[in-house]
Amino acid sequence: MSVDRLTVIGIGLIGGSFARAVRRGGAVGEIVGCSIDGDELRSALDLGVIDRAEADAAAAARGADVVMIATPVGAMPAVFRAIADVLGEQAIVSDAGSVKGSVVAAARAHLGRHFPRFVAGHPIAGTERSGVAASLPDLYVDQRVILTPEPETHADAIAAVRALWEAAGARVEEMPASEHDAILAHTSHLPHMVAYALVNCLGGAEPASELLRFAAGGFRDLTRIASSHPVMWRDIALANRDELLRALRGYRASLGEIVAAIEKGDAAALEEMFARARALRERLGNTGQAHAQSDIERP
Amino acid sequence: MSVDRLTVIGIGLIGGSFARAVRRGGAVGEIVGCSIDGDELRSALDLGVIDRAEADAAAAARGADVVMIATPVGAMPAVFRAIADVLGEQAIVSDAGSVKGSVVAAARAHLGRHFPRFVAGHPIAGTERSGVAASLPDLYVDQRVILTPEPETHADAIAAVRALWEAAGARVEEMPASEHDAILAHTSHLPHMVAYALVNCLGGAEPASELLRFAAGGFRDLTRIASSHPVMWRDIALANRDELLRALRGYRASLGEIVAAIEKGDAAALEEMFARARALRERLGNTGQAHAQSDIERP
Repeated sequence: MSVDRLTVIGIGLIGGSFARAVRRGGAVGEIVGCSIDGDELRSALDLGVIDRAEADAAAAARGADVVMIATPVGAMPAVFRAIADVLGEQAIVSDAGSVKGSVVAAARAHLGRHFPRFVAGHPIAGTERSGVAASLPDLYVDQRVILTPEPETHADAIAAVRALWEAAGARVEEMPASEHDAILAHTSHLPHMVAYALVNCLGGAEPASELLRFAAGGFRDLTRIASSHPVMWRDIALANRDELLRALRGYRASLGEIVAAIEKGDAAALEEMFARARALRERLGNTGQAHAQSDIERP
Repeated sequence: MSVDRLTVIGIGLIGGSFARAVRRGGAVGEIVGCSIDGDELRSALDLGVIDRAEADAAAAARGADVVMIATPVGAMPAVFRAIADVLGEQAIVSDAGSVKGSVVAAARAHLGRHFPRFVAGHPIAGTERSGVAASLPDLYVDQRVILTPEPETHADAIAAVRALWEAAGARVEEMPASEHDAILAHTSHLPHMVAYALVNCLGGAEPASELLRFAAGGFRDLTRIASSHPVMWRDIALANRDELLRALRGYRASLGEIVAAIEKGDAAALEEMFARARALRERLGNTGQAHAQSDIERP
């Protein structure tokens, strides 16, 4: 399948990087961009990330072979509604949202007969920055992209979306949306909540300025993701509410065990818990290296 | 003051790096090392980190101009007891423990008339690795060292310990032990508890192996400090118990607010909390750069 026209709705860090990457990969012809933020849209055009700018989602999607939606997940239902009636018969729709169950449900509700040509996806890559000016053509190189097709999703649509991500340099795999959401709740969404809480705790303690002065490398490393986009993360937290609350329950229980052992002065329990964490952590590897920024912050 | 003989008790990452750094800085003559771990002690000798090895703390401290104690803080009371009777009149004792209040109290209790020549200190540097083989002569370059002298501490002893750390390349400052412990509880000890809990939560969830496979950059970054030494952190958690429990209370309250907002579906509250964290986090700077490993993991 040839993608003569790609439309990217939500042309920020993620959408902008996708546009740059597939263009560099020679996978598309014209790229149309759409954003509710006029400044971002103009930047995308000025930077050459897109060939044409449309403020209106329906106008942007009309005539597209592929529509990639890279807005915050909370905005996706409205985008599906806006574009459903203008999509061509063969048009493929995909997204880059960090939660899949709620996005698939919204697509099913609003895309109607087009739903079998919707391929839900999630690139596990990003930085803590936002906006098209921060977009990078190699953001997805060697990064994982998870597609979560439904039983009725057309195989050729899946293949086309896969081919685009592979042209962007990504490693693509498929799994059910529910599995994606349970995994990401633990490996990404929970850590973001932890980092936000840690920074707000420091900010609420006295004297915050003195604390901040001593918040050197370790703390900075642990909390860098707290610089991530508040609206994006508000949407993720609500869209993956049930799985995230489950992960938070497990985390609070783990933390509660540590607190209880400190309160009781239980040295053996603390040592056991810390040693268990260390052993698990070492299975992840890379404890002694810095990591590429590109896979630090998102999803 | 000339340091003809430096004794380092606890010759692992921190003590070994101190020995290497002050030797390179030309600040000392002979370096005597002591460790309860015979393999570590032999390694230190083989690597040339120390000139002479002693398994017994009293034997190691006898005749030393300066004794630096770099064991886990839980072992320090026993070290103070072991060396108190053999210290020369002018000998200076210091330490590199991550908690200062409890170490100062132990020194006061056990060093007797030598206590005014004890200078409590804490280098805010390290890696998540342990052991003398991981020690580095430049571990402390441009890193902060906090000294927490008491009112009766001799000025010449403070000056001598400061000079050694400066020879190691560090930036030295002084503050009360209580202030140090309150600050570090928030900026270092709390984040370690958070990282340990996060890894153990992941390890307890199902299927852990699948979760670990997806625990890419962001999670790895957030939890690297969970590879830190379990015994060292057990000791820190107990030695700074009150301040750490206070920091944990504040943190759990911050996290509780996020959980409550997710449960209620309160989008405005979530966005406000995430935006507040982002603004605070950005005051720390360096959100877009990787950090030197050397200041990530400890104190």
